[in-house]
Amino acid sequence: MKVLVINAGSSSLKYQLIDMDSEKVLAKGNCERIGQEGAFIGFKAPDGTKIERKTEMVNHTQAFEAVKDALLDPQYGAIKDLSEVSAIGHRVVQGGSYFNKSVLVTDDVIKKIEELAPLAPLHNPAHIQGINACTKVFGKDVPQVVVFDTAFHQTMPEKAYMFAIPYKYYEKYGIRRYGFHGTSHRYVSQKMAELMGKNIEDTKIITCHIGNGSSITAIKGGKVIDTSMGLTPLGGFMMGTRSGSLDPSVITFIAEKENVSAEEMLKILNKESGLLGVSGVSSDDRDVCAAEQQGNHRAHLAHEMLYYQIAKTIGSYYVALGGCDAIVFTAGIGENQPQLRETVCDYISCLGVEMDKEFNKKAKCGVTGTLSTPNSKIRVELIATNEELVIARDTKEIVEAL
Amino acid sequence: MKVLVINAGSSSLKYQLIDMDSEKVLAKGNCERIGQEGAFIGFKAPDGTKIERKTEMVNHTQAFEAVKDALLDPQYGAIKDLSEVSAIGHRVVQGGSYFNKSVLVTDDVIKKIEELAPLAPLHNPAHIQGINACTKVFGKDVPQVVVFDTAFHQTMPEKAYMFAIPYKYYEKYGIRRYGFHGTSHRYVSQKMAELMGKNIEDTKIITCHIGNGSSITAIKGGKVIDTSMGLTPLGGFMMGTRSGSLDPSVITFIAEKENVSAEEMLKILNKESGLLGVSGVSSDDRDVCAAEQQGNHRAHLAHEMLYYQIAKTIGSYYVALGGCDAIVFTAGIGENQPQLRETVCDYISCLGVEMDKEFNKKAKCGVTGTLSTPNSKIRVELIATNEELVIARDTKEIVEAL
Repeated sequence: MKVLVINAGSSSLKYQLIDMDSEKVLAKGNCERIGQEGAFIGFKAPDGTKIERKTEMVNHTQAFEAVKDALLDPQYGAIKDLSEVSAIGHRVVQGGSYFNKSVLVTDDVIKKIEELAPLAPLHNPAHIQGINACTKVFGKDVPQVVVFDTAFHQTMPEKAYMFAIPYKYYEKYGIRRYGFHGTSHRYVSQKMAELMGKNIEDTKIITCHIGNGSSITAIKGGKVIDTSMGLTPLGGFMMGTRSGSLDPSVITFIAEKENVSAEEMLKILNKESGLLGVSGVSSDDRDVCAAEQQGNHRAHLAHEMLYYQIAKTIGSYYVALGGCDAIVFTAGIGENQPQLRETVCDYISCLGVEMDKEFNKKAKCGVTGTLSTPNSKIRVELIATNEELVIARDTKEIVEAL
Repeated sequence: MKVLVINAGSSSLKYQLIDMDSEKVLAKGNCERIGQEGAFIGFKAPDGTKIERKTEMVNHTQAFEAVKDALLDPQYGAIKDLSEVSAIGHRVVQGGSYFNKSVLVTDDVIKKIEELAPLAPLHNPAHIQGINACTKVFGKDVPQVVVFDTAFHQTMPEKAYMFAIPYKYYEKYGIRRYGFHGTSHRYVSQKMAELMGKNIEDTKIITCHIGNGSSITAIKGGKVIDTSMGLTPLGGFMMGTRSGSLDPSVITFIAEKENVSAEEMLKILNKESGLLGVSGVSSDDRDVCAAEQQGNHRAHLAHEMLYYQIAKTIGSYYVALGGCDAIVFTAGIGENQPQLRETVCDYISCLGVEMDKEFNKKAKCGVTGTLSTPNSKIRVELIATNEELVIARDTKEIVEAL
């Protein structure tokens, strides 16, 4: 069975075609600037060559036509006939309180994703465009599945997901903590339990997804009990360009002094803050590392803040879980930045973590493994996340059960 | 030496006259509705009788005249002659980055407090009115001292006090974490070190000031390394009527949907949130307790959230400190709500805390003492805070050194 995995944004679209027998990626690529001038599709040929083709894409349907052409390309394509695509799995950011697991796309499901658009105005409408375009291009007979970023977090207790604001806003608008990166937290926590040779029901795991967007999740017996992101992926601790949660007065103070609207304020906090805002260098951690090595104080400060905030979040989840068996680092920065992991593990040595600093230094660029020593009270692990694989697996499972 | 301690708000004023030889309170009272209709002064007579007198108070000067009259009252007064007041100590909320300790009032100090008014628009102007009114009523020769809520927190490292927003806002407006309740955190942490018979330089203490406003502070060797409140006392975890820190999207979402201004939003988050907003019952924890006992779910939820957030903050500071010798509960709720302390100590039992639950139940209404068992790895203590005494002591010390 071959599953096509789709992550559709408002003007972009990423895809992977995965063979579910071998779980190998047969094809991957992305469409950019959909609906804009200069739209193009980029993809990898089977021999690794990167191909980029300018193609008109006035909408998502045209983008999927380009994906279809790339998949069927006589020279670079991964399949010979469209019928080889057995099912399509879509990433959906916001599933609200409706969805605690992946589901087959139906009219009712589409209606609910639409209904949740106010909670994810940039994402959910784009996902629906993606689903509808897929139906047009691949036909009604190819089953589609949606996998939600929020679903894994739906087990959180009320005390963890409610904000201490007037209750009516929860009733009226559904304002609460939803949490994101659920697919990643689910994948690495299950992998962690496997690696420990334990039934996941007997584990307490803290998963640190540290990328351009970052979140940390406390998982007890395989169920999320708390996560750092909030109503939107802006909440929690600092990220590449996002501030994380703040004293609300900071926001009203800046809004008033600088005379900026709520919308502009959100842009500042989503796009101009975090590592970028503090360092003034870049949102890309590799640039911040380079600047720090050259003695840039603000780059150093940005890192100090990030490491400290991650360590404090782990401390708070250690208490939330009532102890912890394992801590996982994953995602772009988590998988590739030894200094971050070393500093965080130094902070949490008071919890009984002992790090294998030599191996940690080598653990990057695809090298994964156990970062803690055998003496460590808590096992610390580097696991490469794979959200696309989870989406493909969920899709396969649901479609096979039809 | 007798010291008059003043806490002046924009329309209210609290005072205590303290004899510094015995550290006994000779007189205490408060003026309310200053500048409004129905202004009055309330105070305690030496025999404990509560006196309330309606008096015209168009401004702070008239309020201080009323305080003077109460102090000198032939029947209820504590002193015979105004010259018995040797010095006056004022609480000042915001000392910014200028003040890391208490100082004698000078023209330059007043100028700096004025300059900091944008960071505490409700408080600092009122404090200056209080200082000026004192000068008029008590004369220029009575030395005045200012004690800042923020001063004790000035030892925080950059990584703890900076927000992950564009750096220019720190440079332009001084937007950073200042922290509040510093006088209280200082008092109880010093007391804790004394009780342990330790040099404060060798201690790691977490102080939980839980009242209508609440904050938790991590103190290493007598120096604050982190505290929960932020730019203003709205930051941190939930309080009686305050939300604490939030995913900024929550704020912009509500502001947009309800069409409220930044000012109205601040009012909602400062006055209508926290225990009040979640429970819908009251901001007074005693009312929330009563409602919870009667089976009110939202009152129960409000408490669950508060206890959980306190426990998580302690967990994060345990990591920030690299372990912890003692945890102190203080202030209105901290000193009088055994259930809060028991639930929090259950959460942090994973850090080695073992609570003496029997004693904890009795520890309220003035009963203080050690809440942990001798086996507990971390000593947990209930200490009654006394901010006025700290203000009086600082005032005495500075004035005696003149």
